Amino acid sequence: MSKGLLVVVSAPSGGGKGTILKELFSRDSNLVFSVSATTRSPRPGEVHGKHYYFLSREEFQKLISEGKMLEHAEYCGNFYGTPKGPVEAWREEGKDVFLEIDVAGGAQIKRLVPDCVSIFILPPSMKVLEKRLRARGTEEEAVIEKRLLTARKEIPCAKDYDYIVFNDRLEDAAADLASILKAEKLKYTRNTDSIERVLNNAETFR
Amino acid sequence: MSKGLLVVVSAPSGGGKGTILKELFSRDSNLVFSVSATTRSPRPGEVHGKHYYFLSREEFQKLISEGKMLEHAEYCGNFYGTPKGPVEAWREEGKDVFLEIDVAGGAQIKRLVPDCVSIFILPPSMKVLEKRLRARGTEEEAVIEKRLLTARKEIPCAKDYDYIVFNDRLEDAAADLASILKAEKLKYTRNTDSIERVLNNAETFR
Repeated sequence: MSKGLLVVVSAPSGGGKGTILKELFSRDSNLVFSVSATTRSPRPGEVHGKHYYFLSREEFQKLISEGKMLEHAEYCGNFYGTPKGPVEAWREEGKDVFLEIDVAGGAQIKRLVPDCVSIFILPPSMKVLEKRLRARGTEEEAVIEKRLLTARKEIPCAKDYDYIVFNDRLEDAAADLASILKAEKLKYTRNTDSIERVLNNAETFR
Repeated sequence: MSKGLLVVVSAPSGGGKGTILKELFSRDSNLVFSVSATTRSPRPGEVHGKHYYFLSREEFQKLISEGKMLEHAEYCGNFYGTPKGPVEAWREEGKDVFLEIDVAGGAQIKRLVPDCVSIFILPPSMKVLEKRLRARGTEEEAVIEKRLLTARKEIPCAKDYDYIVFNDRLEDAAADLASILKAEKLKYTRNTDSIERVLNNAETFR
Protein backbone atom coordinates (compact mmCIF):
# COMPACT_ATOMS: atom_id res chain seq x y z
CA MET A 1 0.00 0.00 0.00
CA SER A 2 1.33 3.39 -0.90
CA LYS A 3 1.38 6.40 1.39
CA GLY A 4 -1.65 8.68 1.33
CA LEU A 5 -1.55 12.28 0.12
CA LEU A 6 -1.69 15.48 2.10
CA VAL A 7 -4.15 17.63 0.16
CA VAL A 8 -4.36 21.34 0.94
CA VAL A 9 -7.56 22.97 -0.30
CA SER A 10 -8.25 26.67 -0.23
CA ALA A 11 -10.96 28.86 -1.72
CA PRO A 12 -11.98 32.47 -1.41
CA SER A 13 -14.97 33.40 0.76
CA GLY A 14 -18.11 31.93 -0.75
CA GLY A 15 -16.12 29.70 -3.10
CA GLY A 16 -18.27 26.65 -2.38
CA LYS A 17 -15.35 24.55 -1.14
CA GLY A 18 -17.43 22.75 1.49
CA THR A 19 -20.02 21.52 -1.01
CA ILE A 20 -17.40 20.21 -3.43
CA LEU A 21 -15.48 18.36 -0.72
CA LYS A 22 -18.71 16.85 0.60
CA GLU A 23 -19.45 15.53 -2.89
CA LEU A 24 -15.91 14.18 -3.25
CA PHE A 25 -15.93 12.50 0.17
CA SER A 26 -19.25 10.81 -0.63
CA ARG A 27 -17.51 9.09 -3.57
CA ASP A 28 -14.31 7.96 -1.88
CA SER A 29 -14.08 6.34 1.54
CA ASN A 30 -10.31 6.69 1.62
CA LEU A 31 -10.44 10.42 2.38
CA VAL A 32 -10.28 12.04 5.81
CA PHE A 33 -10.25 15.60 7.08
CA SER A 34 -7.37 16.66 9.27
CA VAL A 35 -8.35 17.61 12.82
CA SER A 36 -7.24 20.99 14.15
CA ALA A 37 -5.80 21.67 17.55
CA THR A 38 -6.99 24.59 19.63
CA THR A 39 -6.40 26.16 23.03
CA ARG A 40 -10.01 27.26 23.40
CA SER A 41 -12.34 25.31 25.70
CA PRO A 42 -14.52 22.55 24.27
CA ARG A 43 -18.15 23.48 23.67
CA PRO A 44 -20.89 21.06 24.73
CA GLY A 45 -20.81 17.96 22.55
CA GLU A 46 -17.35 18.61 21.08
CA VAL A 47 -15.14 15.53 21.23
CA HIS A 48 -11.34 15.63 21.64
CA GLY A 49 -9.69 14.08 18.59
CA LYS A 50 -12.82 14.36 16.49
CA HIS A 51 -13.87 18.02 16.40
CA TYR A 52 -10.59 19.36 17.75
CA TYR A 53 -7.57 18.34 19.75
CA PHE A 54 -8.06 20.47 22.87
CA LEU A 55 -4.65 21.47 24.14
CA SER A 56 -3.30 23.74 26.85
CA ARG A 57 -1.36 26.83 25.78
CA GLU A 58 1.82 25.11 26.98
CA GLU A 59 1.16 21.94 25.00
CA PHE A 60 0.33 23.98 21.92
CA GLN A 61 3.45 26.13 22.15
CA LYS A 62 5.61 23.05 22.69
CA LEU A 63 4.32 21.57 19.41
CA ILE A 64 5.10 24.84 17.62
CA SER A 65 8.62 25.08 19.01
CA GLU A 66 9.31 21.44 18.10
CA GLY A 67 8.17 22.05 14.50
CA LYS A 68 5.23 19.70 14.95
CA MET A 69 2.55 22.15 13.75
CA LEU A 70 1.94 22.27 10.00
CA GLU A 71 0.46 25.74 10.41
CA HIS A 72 -1.03 27.79 13.19
CA ALA A 73 -2.64 31.13 13.90
CA GLU A 74 -3.96 33.09 16.85
CA TYR A 75 -7.59 34.16 16.76
CA CYS A 76 -9.54 35.95 19.52
CA GLY A 77 -6.84 35.10 22.03
CA ASN A 78 -6.76 31.37 21.25
CA PHE A 79 -4.36 29.30 19.17
CA TYR A 80 -5.58 27.18 16.28
CA GLY A 81 -3.37 24.90 14.19
CA THR A 82 -2.79 21.56 12.47
CA PRO A 83 -0.62 19.03 14.31
CA LYS A 84 1.67 17.08 12.00
CA GLY A 85 1.54 13.77 13.93
CA PRO A 86 -2.03 12.59 13.23
CA VAL A 87 -1.76 13.73 9.58
CA GLU A 88 1.37 11.61 9.09
CA ALA A 89 -0.20 8.62 10.89
CA TRP A 90 -3.22 8.70 8.56
CA ARG A 91 -0.99 9.03 5.52
CA GLU A 92 1.01 6.00 6.61
CA GLU A 93 -2.30 4.09 6.74
CA GLY A 94 -2.84 5.07 3.11
CA LYS A 95 -5.52 7.68 3.81
CA ASP A 96 -5.57 10.92 1.84
CA VAL A 97 -5.73 13.70 4.41
CA PHE A 98 -7.50 16.93 3.50
CA LEU A 99 -6.57 20.18 5.10
CA GLU A 100 -8.90 23.13 4.54
CA ILE A 101 -6.94 26.27 5.10
CA ASP A 102 -7.16 30.00 4.42
CA VAL A 103 -5.79 31.18 1.12
CA ALA A 104 -2.50 32.44 2.50
CA GLY A 105 -1.69 29.11 4.16
CA GLY A 106 -1.00 26.99 1.07
CA ALA A 107 2.51 28.28 0.48
CA GLN A 108 3.38 27.86 4.18
CA ILE A 109 2.43 24.17 4.18
CA LYS A 110 4.20 23.56 0.86
CA ARG A 111 7.46 24.60 2.53
CA LEU A 112 6.95 22.22 5.48
CA VAL A 113 5.55 19.31 3.46
CA PRO A 114 6.95 19.60 -0.07
CA ASP A 115 5.08 16.52 -1.28
CA CYS A 116 1.68 17.97 -0.37
CA VAL A 117 -0.83 18.61 -3.14
CA SER A 118 -2.30 22.11 -3.06
CA ILE A 119 -5.54 22.97 -4.80
CA PHE A 120 -7.20 26.36 -5.10
CA ILE A 121 -10.91 26.38 -5.88
CA LEU A 122 -11.91 29.38 -7.96
CA PRO A 123 -15.39 30.67 -8.79
CA PRO A 124 -15.91 30.90 -12.57
CA SER A 125 -16.09 34.70 -12.28
CA MET A 126 -16.72 37.45 -9.74
CA LYS A 127 -20.23 37.84 -11.20
CA VAL A 128 -21.05 34.20 -10.48
CA LEU A 129 -19.59 34.50 -6.98
CA GLU A 130 -21.76 37.57 -6.31
CA LYS A 131 -24.85 35.82 -7.66
CA ARG A 132 -24.22 32.84 -5.38
CA LEU A 133 -23.68 34.97 -2.31
CA ARG A 134 -26.95 36.84 -3.01
CA ALA A 135 -28.84 33.60 -3.74
CA ARG A 136 -28.27 32.47 -0.17
CA GLY A 137 -30.57 35.34 0.82
CA THR A 138 -29.26 35.23 4.35
CA GLU A 139 -26.79 38.05 4.37
CA GLU A 140 -27.08 41.79 4.38
CA GLU A 141 -25.78 43.91 1.53
CA ALA A 142 -22.84 45.18 3.58
CA VAL A 143 -21.76 41.61 4.38
CA ILE A 144 -21.96 40.58 0.73
CA GLU A 145 -19.92 43.61 -0.32
CA LYS A 146 -17.29 42.77 2.28
CA ARG A 147 -17.11 39.12 1.17
CA LEU A 148 -16.63 40.15 -2.46
CA LEU A 149 -13.88 42.58 -1.50
CA THR A 150 -12.17 39.83 0.53
CA ALA A 151 -12.49 37.38 -2.38
CA ARG A 152 -10.80 39.90 -4.72
CA LYS A 153 -7.83 39.98 -2.36
CA GLU A 154 -7.78 36.20 -1.85
CA ILE A 155 -8.06 35.03 -5.47
CA PRO A 156 -4.53 36.14 -6.50
CA CYS A 157 -3.13 33.70 -3.90
CA ALA A 158 -4.10 30.92 -6.35
CA LYS A 159 -0.70 31.44 -8.02
CA ASP A 160 1.01 29.64 -5.11
CA TYR A 161 -1.05 26.46 -5.51
CA ASP A 162 -0.34 23.40 -7.64
CA TYR A 163 -3.80 23.10 -9.18
CA ILE A 164 -6.78 25.31 -10.03
CA VAL A 165 -10.27 23.83 -9.94
CA PHE A 166 -13.18 25.89 -11.20
CA ASN A 167 -16.32 25.65 -9.15
CA ASP A 168 -18.72 25.92 -12.05
CA ARG A 169 -20.65 22.66 -11.88
CA LEU A 170 -20.47 20.69 -8.65
CA GLU A 171 -20.14 17.27 -10.31
CA ASP A 172 -17.37 18.42 -12.64
CA ALA A 173 -15.43 20.14 -9.87
CA ALA A 174 -15.59 17.00 -7.71
CA ALA A 175 -14.46 14.89 -10.68
CA ASP A 176 -11.56 17.29 -11.25
CA LEU A 177 -10.45 16.82 -7.65
CA ALA A 178 -10.70 13.04 -8.01
CA SER A 179 -8.53 13.14 -11.15
CA ILE A 180 -5.91 15.23 -9.37
CA LEU A 181 -5.70 12.71 -6.52
CA LYS A 182 -5.45 9.80 -8.94
CA ALA A 183 -2.79 11.44 -11.11
CA GLU A 184 -0.72 12.52 -8.10
CA LYS A 185 -0.59 8.91 -6.94
CA LEU A 186 0.77 7.87 -10.33
CA LYS A 187 3.74 10.25 -10.16
CA TYR A 188 7.07 8.45 -10.36
CA THR A 189 8.27 10.42 -7.32
CA ARG A 190 5.55 8.69 -5.28
CA ASN A 191 6.38 5.28 -6.77
CA THR A 192 10.15 5.15 -6.68
CA ASP A 193 10.01 1.50 -5.64
CA SER A 194 7.96 0.50 -8.70
CA ILE A 195 10.91 -0.42 -10.92
CA GLU A 196 12.36 -2.81 -8.34
CA ARG A 197 8.94 -4.28 -7.65
CA VAL A 198 8.31 -5.09 -11.29
CA LEU A 199 11.77 -6.55 -11.83
CA ASN A 200 11.53 -8.62 -8.64
CA ASN A 201 7.99 -9.82 -9.33
CA ALA A 202 6.55 -8.23 -6.19
CA GLU A 203 2.81 -7.88 -5.79
CA THR A 204 1.25 -5.20 -7.95
CA PHE A 205 -0.39 -2.13 -6.46
CA ARG A 206 -3.98 -2.14 -7.58
CA MET B 1 -9.44 27.32 -25.23
CA SER B 2 -6.29 26.22 -23.52
CA LYS B 3 -3.26 24.77 -25.27
CA GLY B 4 -3.13 21.01 -25.73
CA LEU B 5 -0.57 18.78 -24.03
CA LEU B 6 2.42 17.01 -25.49
CA VAL B 7 2.23 13.53 -24.02
CA VAL B 8 5.25 11.26 -24.31
CA VAL B 9 4.43 7.59 -23.77
CA SER B 10 6.99 4.82 -23.50
CA ALA B 11 6.83 1.18 -22.51
CA PRO B 12 9.19 -1.75 -22.58
CA SER B 13 8.88 -4.38 -25.32
CA GLY B 14 5.56 -6.18 -24.97
CA GLY B 15 4.26 -3.59 -22.50
CA GLY B 16 0.90 -3.36 -24.20
CA LYS B 17 1.18 0.36 -24.88
CA GLY B 18 -0.67 0.16 -28.19
CA THR B 19 -3.75 -1.49 -26.71
CA ILE B 20 -4.01 1.04 -23.88
CA LEU B 21 -3.66 4.01 -26.20
CA LYS B 22 -6.27 2.56 -28.55
CA GLU B 23 -8.68 2.28 -25.62
CA LEU B 24 -7.90 5.83 -24.49
CA PHE B 25 -8.29 7.29 -27.99
CA SER B 26 -11.67 5.57 -28.37
CA ARG B 27 -12.89 7.56 -25.35
CA ASP B 28 -11.55 11.00 -26.24
CA SER B 29 -11.76 12.62 -29.67
CA ASN B 30 -9.38 15.41 -28.67
CA LEU B 31 -6.31 13.17 -28.88
CA VAL B 32 -3.98 12.81 -31.87
CA PHE B 33 -0.81 10.87 -32.58
CA SER B 34 2.21 12.81 -33.71
CA VAL B 35 3.43 11.96 -37.20
CA SER B 36 7.07 11.00 -37.65
CA ALA B 37 9.36 12.21 -40.39
CA THR B 38 11.60 9.78 -42.27
CA THR B 39 14.11 9.79 -45.09
CA ARG B 40 13.11 6.33 -46.28
CA SER B 41 10.95 5.96 -49.39
CA PRO B 42 7.17 5.70 -49.04
CA ARG B 43 5.75 2.20 -49.30
CA PRO B 44 2.65 1.58 -51.43
CA GLY B 45 -0.37 3.22 -49.78
CA GLU B 46 1.62 5.38 -47.36
CA VAL B 47 0.43 8.99 -47.35
CA HIS B 48 2.72 11.98 -46.70
CA GLY B 49 1.55 13.80 -43.54
CA LYS B 50 -0.54 10.86 -42.37
CA HIS B 51 1.75 7.84 -42.03
CA TYR B 52 4.98 9.82 -42.24
CA TYR B 53 6.38 13.09 -43.45
CA PHE B 54 8.66 11.86 -46.24
CA LEU B 55 11.68 14.11 -46.37
CA SER B 56 14.95 14.19 -48.25
CA ARG B 57 18.15 13.75 -46.25
CA GLU B 58 18.89 17.45 -46.76
CA GLU B 59 15.47 18.55 -45.52
CA PHE B 60 15.77 16.26 -42.51
CA GLN B 61 19.23 17.46 -41.57
CA LYS B 62 18.15 21.10 -41.95
CA LEU B 63 15.36 20.52 -39.40
CA ILE B 64 17.85 18.94 -37.00
CA SER B 65 20.36 21.77 -37.32
CA GLU B 66 17.61 24.36 -36.82
CA GLY B 67 16.47 22.61 -33.62
CA LYS B 68 13.13 21.74 -35.19
CA MET B 69 13.25 18.01 -34.43
CA LEU B 70 11.96 16.92 -31.01
CA GLU B 71 14.01 13.75 -31.29
CA HIS B 72 15.57 11.71 -34.05
CA ALA B 73 17.53 8.54 -34.67
CA GLU B 74 19.18 6.73 -37.55
CA TYR B 75 18.01 3.22 -38.29
CA CYS B 76 19.12 0.99 -41.20
CA GLY B 77 20.63 3.96 -42.98
CA ASN B 78 17.53 6.15 -42.74
CA PHE B 79 16.62 9.00 -40.41
CA TYR B 80 13.46 8.91 -38.31
CA GLY B 81 12.29 11.71 -36.07
CA THR B 82 9.49 13.94 -34.77
CA PRO B 83 9.20 17.43 -36.29
CA LYS B 84 8.28 20.09 -33.75
CA GLY B 85 6.13 22.23 -36.10
CA PRO B 86 3.05 20.01 -36.58
CA VAL B 87 3.08 19.05 -32.88
CA GLU B 88 2.99 22.71 -31.86
CA ALA B 89 0.27 23.51 -34.43
CA TRP B 90 -1.96 20.76 -33.04
CA ARG B 91 -1.34 21.89 -29.48
CA GLU B 92 -2.33 25.45 -30.41
CA GLU B 93 -5.60 23.98 -31.71
CA GLY B 94 -6.13 22.50 -28.25
CA LYS B 95 -5.36 18.91 -29.28
CA ASP B 96 -3.38 16.65 -26.96
CA VAL B 97 -0.57 15.22 -29.06
CA PHE B 98 0.76 11.76 -28.22
CA LEU B 99 4.27 10.77 -29.01
CA GLU B 100 5.18 7.09 -28.72
CA ILE B 101 8.88 6.82 -28.27
CA ASP B 102 11.49 4.34 -27.16
CA VAL B 103 12.27 4.25 -23.47
CA ALA B 104 15.47 6.27 -23.72
CA GLY B 105 13.73 9.13 -25.53
CA GLY B 106 11.59 10.53 -22.72
CA ALA B 107 14.37 12.44 -20.98
CA GLN B 108 15.53 13.88 -24.34
CA ILE B 109 12.10 15.35 -25.11
CA LYS B 110 11.68 16.65 -21.56
CA ARG B 111 14.76 18.82 -22.11
CA LEU B 112 13.43 20.27 -25.38
CA VAL B 113 9.80 20.64 -24.27
CA PRO B 114 9.82 21.08 -20.49
CA ASP B 115 6.01 21.28 -20.28
CA CYS B 116 5.55 17.86 -21.88
CA VAL B 117 3.91 15.11 -19.84
CA SER B 118 5.88 11.87 -19.84
CA ILE B 119 4.31 8.56 -18.94
CA PHE B 120 5.98 5.18 -18.63
CA ILE B 121 3.76 2.13 -18.90
CA LEU B 122 4.99 -0.75 -16.76
CA PRO B 123 3.86 -4.37 -16.75
CA PRO B 124 2.71 -5.44 -13.25
CA SER B 125 5.68 -7.82 -13.05
CA MET B 126 8.21 -9.63 -15.22
CA LYS B 127 6.18 -12.81 -14.75
CA VAL B 128 3.06 -11.18 -16.16
CA LEU B 129 5.05 -9.76 -19.05
CA GLU B 130 6.47 -13.19 -19.84
CA LYS B 131 3.02 -14.77 -19.64
CA ARG B 132 1.65 -12.18 -22.07
CA LEU B 133 4.48 -12.64 -24.53
CA ARG B 134 3.95 -16.42 -24.49
CA ALA B 135 0.16 -16.06 -24.78
CA ARG B 136 0.58 -14.46 -28.18
CA GLY B 137 1.84 -17.84 -29.34
CA THR B 138 3.46 -16.26 -32.35
CA GLU B 139 7.04 -16.01 -31.30
CA GLU B 140 9.82 -18.49 -30.84
CA GLU B 141 11.41 -19.12 -27.48
CA ALA B 142 14.60 -17.30 -28.45
CA VAL B 143 12.61 -14.19 -29.43
CA ILE B 144 10.68 -14.21 -26.16
CA GLU B 145 13.90 -14.55 -24.18
CA LYS B 146 15.41 -11.63 -26.06
CA ARG B 147 12.34 -9.45 -25.47
CA LEU B 148 12.40 -10.18 -21.74
CA LEU B 149 16.08 -9.33 -21.57
CA THR B 150 15.43 -6.06 -23.42
CA ALA B 151 12.51 -5.24 -21.09
CA ARG B 152 14.78 -5.73 -18.05
CA LYS B 153 17.12 -3.11 -19.49
CA GLU B 154 14.33 -0.73 -20.48
CA ILE B 155 12.24 -0.74 -17.29
CA PRO B 156 14.78 1.22 -15.17
CA CYS B 157 14.34 4.15 -17.61
CA ALA B 158 10.94 4.71 -15.95
CA LYS B 159 12.74 6.85 -13.36
CA ASP B 160 13.08 9.68 -15.90
CA TYR B 161 9.34 9.90 -16.52
CA ASP B 162 6.70 12.01 -14.74
CA TYR B 163 4.16 9.24 -14.28
CA ILE B 164 4.03 5.47 -13.97
CA VAL B 165 0.97 3.60 -15.23
CA PHE B 166 0.64 -0.10 -14.54
CA ASN B 167 -0.71 -2.16 -17.37
CA ASP B 168 -2.62 -4.62 -15.23
CA ARG B 169 -6.21 -4.16 -16.37
CA LEU B 170 -6.76 -2.39 -19.69
CA GLU B 171 -9.73 -0.31 -18.50
CA ASP B 172 -7.94 0.86 -15.37
CA ALA B 173 -4.77 1.74 -17.22
CA ALA B 174 -6.72 3.80 -19.78
CA ALA B 175 -8.60 5.54 -16.93
CA ASP B 176 -5.26 6.32 -15.26
CA LEU B 177 -4.04 7.97 -18.44
CA ALA B 178 -7.25 9.99 -18.70
CA SER B 179 -6.85 11.20 -15.10
CA ILE B 180 -3.28 12.26 -15.79
CA LEU B 181 -4.36 14.34 -18.80
CA LYS B 182 -7.18 15.95 -16.81
CA ALA B 183 -5.02 16.76 -13.80
CA GLU B 184 -2.21 18.16 -15.95
CA LYS B 185 -4.67 20.59 -17.53
CA LEU B 186 -5.66 21.81 -14.06
CA LYS B 187 -2.12 22.74 -13.06
CA TYR B 188 -1.76 26.40 -12.21
CA THR B 189 1.29 26.61 -14.50
CA ARG B 190 -1.01 25.77 -17.43
CA ASN B 191 -3.65 28.28 -16.25
CA THR B 192 -1.66 31.35 -15.34
CA ASP B 193 -4.34 33.59 -16.85
CA SER B 194 -7.09 32.13 -14.65
CA ILE B 195 -6.80 34.69 -11.84
CA GLU B 196 -7.18 37.63 -14.22
CA ARG B 197 -10.03 35.90 -16.02
CA VAL B 198 -12.01 35.38 -12.85
CA LEU B 199 -11.41 38.91 -11.57
CA ASN B 200 -12.31 40.41 -14.95
CA ASN B 201 -15.39 38.23 -15.43
CA ALA B 202 -14.07 36.63 -18.62
CA GLU B 203 -15.75 33.54 -19.98
CA THR B 204 -15.07 30.41 -17.98
CA PHE B 205 -13.19 27.48 -19.47
CA ARG B 206 -15.49 24.51 -19.34
